[in-house]
Amino acid sequence: MCNTDCMAHNISFLLLSALAFLIPALPAGAKPSMGEVLSASKPSDWRPLDPANTLYVALPSGRIIIELNPGFAPLHVANIKSLVGARYFDGLPVLRVQDNYVAQWGDPENRHPIPSGVGKVAPEFDSPLPPHMAFTRLPDGDVYAPEVGFSDGFPVARSAKLHLTWLAHCYGMVGVGRDLDVESGSGAEMYVVIGHSPRHLDRNVALVGRVVKGMELLSGLPRGSLEMGFYAKEETPLPIKSMRLEADVPLPERTPLEALRTDTPTFAALIESRRNRPEKFFKVKAERIEVCNVPIPVRPRK
Amino acid sequence: MCNTDCMAHNISFLLLSALAFLIPALPAGAKPSMGEVLSASKPSDWRPLDPANTLYVALPSGRIIIELNPGFAPLHVANIKSLVGARYFDGLPVLRVQDNYVAQWGDPENRHPIPSGVGKVAPEFDSPLPPHMAFTRLPDGDVYAPEVGFSDGFPVARSAKLHLTWLAHCYGMVGVGRDLDVESGSGAEMYVVIGHSPRHLDRNVALVGRVVKGMELLSGLPRGSLEMGFYAKEETPLPIKSMRLEADVPLPERTPLEALRTDTPTFAALIESRRNRPEKFFKVKAERIEVCNVPIPVRPRK
Repeated sequence: MCNTDCMAHNISFLLLSALAFLIPALPAGAKPSMGEVLSASKPSDWRPLDPANTLYVALPSGRIIIELNPGFAPLHVANIKSLVGARYFDGLPVLRVQDNYVAQWGDPENRHPIPSGVGKVAPEFDSPLPPHMAFTRLPDGDVYAPEVGFSDGFPVARSAKLHLTWLAHCYGMVGVGRDLDVESGSGAEMYVVIGHSPRHLDRNVALVGRVVKGMELLSGLPRGSLEMGFYAKEETPLPIKSMRLEADVPLPERTPLEALRTDTPTFAALIESRRNRPEKFFKVKAERIEVCNVPIPVRPRK
Repeated sequence: MCNTDCMAHNISFLLLSALAFLIPALPAGAKPSMGEVLSASKPSDWRPLDPANTLYVALPSGRIIIELNPGFAPLHVANIKSLVGARYFDGLPVLRVQDNYVAQWGDPENRHPIPSGVGKVAPEFDSPLPPHMAFTRLPDGDVYAPEVGFSDGFPVARSAKLHLTWLAHCYGMVGVGRDLDVESGSGAEMYVVIGHSPRHLDRNVALVGRVVKGMELLSGLPRGSLEMGFYAKEETPLPIKSMRLEADVPLPERTPLEALRTDTPTFAALIESRRNRPEKFFKVKAERIEVCNVPIPVRPRK
């Protein structure tokens, strides 16, 4: 890890790389850093987040933005949209923050009525492998799944043998808590991964999205002192002020974002820049990367 | 992820499993959970932490305890002990908390003099593979290294081809920041991994230990708003009240801990209980585990 002198070098380097588009070309043979890859990206390398699938979670400390992915768990995402539309989550607490695991919110005391039409849904923990799936495969394997990569901006695992695909429990992924019954996760309890990726949860719960902005508002919360990170009585849980779909928020109050597409040569170059970091700091290049270590850049929409 | 009803089941289950030593035997064929493995452990499955290699970091919010590992980075650990002995760290700030990465402390403004005898040391980023190494190998492979497992309570990677072994950058591991020069890490800047394991740092920096208690006091800190998680002027960094070796702390003020040995059948059973979780919640067993997802239990010394 960089010490402070090294940071100073790196920060100058970042500033330089932000200007890289002004520089005619990289020296022959030099591999670009991630900063250089992003600076050289074209507008078409980015996709705007869809307001109909973008969720704003307002905490007293600021706005968390979640990109929902209805492709893998359409029924769960539909339930969440119904709950959000009924303002079900407004005022509910972040009731559990367990270190190196998850932050979770919900209504354990059943204070809010579940809107009609929201109920148990099929598990949606994995999906049949479609014949033509957008999939940028990582070359270095995975401990948990036969294949891993990216599909439409999300970390994905799949198995040709099982003919299945599923979202991977990487840092920042958002899932739906359930009881022992696999159909018991309605969407009324949601969690976000705030630690080392708990990939053993893959195929056991429905993942519905990813935090694309404001992750630090959850990961920096005090951990609950009780079993499993629940807050004790004297530890006041943070209330959720509101949850809204971006589409339902007036235009001037929106935070329009765009995410780097994961099906482009630019994203392939980004992966390569992280497999073999060209930065001088790295004396031994990993030459490999694990799916949850690949950043999926998101920025204000241009 | 468990919702709140499920938690209630699990917590009862944990309470039950804490009593498992009272229960004559598990049903034939039933695999024990981690709680059951720990409940059935013998005193000899545990090793006391060595006060000469146990570091107390006092923050205003409480005590963080680090187990130092001089086996992999003896010169760095010796430097840290000299710095701690000279009270070098007392009053220095946690100057950087970068989300999903590291918390780091040090003295970028050179306010504290470096004690004599503390200076640049050889890199110590990896070590020659010893002929008889205590090593509990994991069976499921690794994205970054040919072999991974545990040695004397630490997550370790190794390569027979390179004849090298090194500590792995898992959550909670403690390292020494350096500048671009590989010999520039004296120990005067230290960092702790607070996010998904940045294994690309393996073999590029000296890891010196692991946080065994109080991790949440670092991981729950507000993230710095500047580049790389540095704190802005108005964001007051937390001061380290003191850093002391346990051996230098009066007995009544110590927090004596013991860690589960990683070279026993009990630890092998723990690994198995996490590869194939017997808990009813898990409908699909991972049948695999990644090195940074294996817990290394630590408890008050009995």
